[in-house]
Amino acid sequence: MAKQKKQPRPKAETPKGFRDYFGAEVTERNRMLAQIAEVYDRYGFDPLETSAVETVEALGKFLPDVDRPNEGVFAFQEDGGAEDGTWLALRYDMTAPLARVAAQFRNDLPNPYRRYTMGPVWRNEKPGPGRFRQFYQCDADTVGAASVAADAEICAMLADTLEAVGIPRGDYIVRVNNRKVLNGVLEVAGLAGEDSEVARGIALRAIDKLDKVGADGVRQLLGEGRLDESGDFTKGANLAEEQKDVVMAFIGGRHVEIEFGRPKLTTFNQSGREVTTINNLSSLVKGSRVGEDGVAELEAISELLDAQGYGPDRIVIDPSVVRGLGYYTGPVYEAELTFEITDEKGRPRQFGSVAGGGRYDDLVKRFTGQEVPATGISIGVDRLLAALRAKGRLSGTTEGPVVVTVMDRDRMADYQAMASELRAAGIRAEVYLGNPKNFGNQLKYADKRHSPVAVIQGSDEAAAGKVQLKDLILGAKLAEDATLEEWKSQPAQTEVDRADLVAGVKALLDRHR
Amino acid sequence: MAKQKKQPRPKAETPKGFRDYFGAEVTERNRMLAQIAEVYDRYGFDPLETSAVETVEALGKFLPDVDRPNEGVFAFQEDGGAEDGTWLALRYDMTAPLARVAAQFRNDLPNPYRRYTMGPVWRNEKPGPGRFRQFYQCDADTVGAASVAADAEICAMLADTLEAVGIPRGDYIVRVNNRKVLNGVLEVAGLAGEDSEVARGIALRAIDKLDKVGADGVRQLLGEGRLDESGDFTKGANLAEEQKDVVMAFIGGRHVEIEFGRPKLTTFNQSGREVTTINNLSSLVKGSRVGEDGVAELEAISELLDAQGYGPDRIVIDPSVVRGLGYYTGPVYEAELTFEITDEKGRPRQFGSVAGGGRYDDLVKRFTGQEVPATGISIGVDRLLAALRAKGRLSGTTEGPVVVTVMDRDRMADYQAMASELRAAGIRAEVYLGNPKNFGNQLKYADKRHSPVAVIQGSDEAAAGKVQLKDLILGAKLAEDATLEEWKSQPAQTEVDRADLVAGVKALLDRHR
Repeated sequence: MAKQKKQPRPKAETPKGFRDYFGAEVTERNRMLAQIAEVYDRYGFDPLETSAVETVEALGKFLPDVDRPNEGVFAFQEDGGAEDGTWLALRYDMTAPLARVAAQFRNDLPNPYRRYTMGPVWRNEKPGPGRFRQFYQCDADTVGAASVAADAEICAMLADTLEAVGIPRGDYIVRVNNRKVLNGVLEVAGLAGEDSEVARGIALRAIDKLDKVGADGVRQLLGEGRLDESGDFTKGANLAEEQKDVVMAFIGGRHVEIEFGRPKLTTFNQSGREVTTINNLSSLVKGSRVGEDGVAELEAISELLDAQGYGPDRIVIDPSVVRGLGYYTGPVYEAELTFEITDEKGRPRQFGSVAGGGRYDDLVKRFTGQEVPATGISIGVDRLLAALRAKGRLSGTTEGPVVVTVMDRDRMADYQAMASELRAAGIRAEVYLGNPKNFGNQLKYADKRHSPVAVIQGSDEAAAGKVQLKDLILGAKLAEDATLEEWKSQPAQTEVDRADLVAGVKALLDRHR
Repeated sequence: MAKQKKQPRPKAETPKGFRDYFGAEVTERNRMLAQIAEVYDRYGFDPLETSAVETVEALGKFLPDVDRPNEGVFAFQEDGGAEDGTWLALRYDMTAPLARVAAQFRNDLPNPYRRYTMGPVWRNEKPGPGRFRQFYQCDADTVGAASVAADAEICAMLADTLEAVGIPRGDYIVRVNNRKVLNGVLEVAGLAGEDSEVARGIALRAIDKLDKVGADGVRQLLGEGRLDESGDFTKGANLAEEQKDVVMAFIGGRHVEIEFGRPKLTTFNQSGREVTTINNLSSLVKGSRVGEDGVAELEAISELLDAQGYGPDRIVIDPSVVRGLGYYTGPVYEAELTFEITDEKGRPRQFGSVAGGGRYDDLVKRFTGQEVPATGISIGVDRLLAALRAKGRLSGTTEGPVVVTVMDRDRMADYQAMASELRAAGIRAEVYLGNPKNFGNQLKYADKRHSPVAVIQGSDEAAAGKVQLKDLILGAKLAEDATLEEWKSQPAQTEVDRADLVAGVKALLDRHR
């Protein structure tokens, strides 16, 4: 370590855009992941865990921000940058690694292959408030199933999952659309050919931004472009007026449809699923083969969900859903939490999207040259946790351990034996391991640990074969409100025989359970 | 996607040194992590999850291979390599990030701070058979406790943890040593000063290699160096003959001690803990202050463990334990599985080390300039899993879902409803989503999925309100051994009313549970 001393001290800082998770933040997330895994498992999905690192070649470039195609990932060269070192990168999502696995193990995996996976992904993006460069995704995908039954199943599973983690029915909605319908609308607007690829992309992103920029903003983006408040100019799709009209009609219809998706709607078929959306879409895409295919697929999904009892209180068809990623080829879906929360500035706002996905029939083909249909969902676990916390459905704290205090430094072995006995009885317990000189510090420590009970044994008690038990929860309650008669009648500190340590602690813990 | 077609196809390959984990590999590891977390939690340790990425500055360079100090980590520059971009790296262990957290949040964390963490770490090293560049670690550390009671606690917890994950007492041993004892021996050998730092390091690594290179090999490494079978030469510590003698005497004593650590030993104190080791060590380090401190600490640890009933069948003092990492300053410990397994070449060998750790009092000081004592353990979860698999204590397979087959493509909604009902009853179930044309393929698929039951409903059954249930486990057993009379008496395929689908499937599942 001699060399270290000569260097300047390193800064003790989490890298920009990353954060640490403590205590209940970790256990609550793990519990949620386990709840989600249970639902995925029941649907027949098998777990898969790929490594965090993939070759840059295998990952491909599918991040939404096409304006900066080389950015967005953390990439590095193996073997410390040797010329022949392979370029590697941290995965930015779970779909690209799945496509690689599906291609690599295509002869061994069941076909269709239903898999789920959960873990962090990384984005080399500018971090912002609440926007991190590492976050959890929890994905389920079906590879090798061309039928839209696979898409319907994923939507149903998504609804089940949200309820399993504690979002009650009515507080969420799964919205389904189809890229083919969007492409159909663009075809009707005259944007079908390969030479319109760039304009199509801009138009899709413009539709996706409706919530942010409003109808006027979208129209600007469909035309020459849009200057935002900060002075940044976004280039537009340069459509002609009549082309814009087609797209805007679609968007206009959409706003009605969002209303339609809500329970207050009245235009349902026998099964309770709204039918007007499908009819509206049919007329909008008339003449476009791909658009009509898309509408037919949406209809099939709708029927399959009806048969399983998933009504429009859980899953709706919504033509406004676009999904940012470029690789979707068919149905796309999105789960949104519909309750209001209060934002940082105290204003109420809808919580918004917590999951999304869709069909991507070309991703495996990148590797094999053969078409492999695939569809799947990604749940943003950190956003879901934030939602449950905002609603007060997660406590954010865990009960601390029983703290065995140290009155007599030389009798550490006795104190350890006490903690050991408590643990053997299934009670979370620890000995105070700091400097025991100041007893007040030990109780402050127990407070900070949310400890329910402190065990105290000085030399007098030891000689008499006794221990003192201090009920810290009761103590805190008494300190908070001195008039709590019901609590005052109970002693906050009791003495028990050393032999009755476990029973005595259990009795105090039971008081508060 | 038009552009993709013009590029050569990417290779579908896991990057060199990385691997994918499927099905039971994932669930078995998750179960083990949960079992370990439960023990850690009971000892009062709190979870912490840092990000995979740290600044290179904060990580520091503590990997064992001091010959290549700049290698071993995957490092990259943020903001795509801009000149002012911070250098970041994937964590290579969990200790460096903990030191950073302990420094960064020192005013908020309880003191002492007991934390556990579990997750992957990354090493930019040459991969080998069974040696991967990403692997799981499961760490528990106590920061801020100078007392060796913290070390004793970690050793006891390690023993409890191994038993909790399924390694019975007698199949493992936790070995404890103290770097101060090693340093004391080196001091006695005349290697105390700062100018002997390099020689000390080489001597420590030489002692650590005793199992690999034998006593002669160690003596060569203590002298001019050693030429191994492959022709590689490792530079030695260049000690004089009398210096080598001191170290070799220590190593010689050690081999006796390893024997002493085993249950067959007879020289125990009243509590059943062997005392000869401590006495031997005392005479070996006589005259070295640090060495005598180290022996006293080992004695204290021994007494604390006795008081909690951890005898030499679980934890022993063993002077040969070195631990590779350079940052250890006091007690070091290691857990070894003592049963034999058969290696790839069919030879029996001891399974070896699965966990290790020690005290590192200077790591937090790097950041703050103030001494912060710390000690902790790291469990190699993947090695533990491999051990349990080698002993046949993990099945490696999970029960597959009930597969609802598709006889009639147009009745997909009916089949989905069946799967949905089964799932609602808690039964893992799925509809076959591949091309349903060839029914044989559907049954082959069910086989590959380890499916216990296939549900079959053609148009005739549908008209009659019936379903066929095929017991695939029984089918497999009958195919295996046609003389199984007890099984033959039961039908492998039964017909039940559609309304009794769930009850019928349950009955078949119960047959095999």
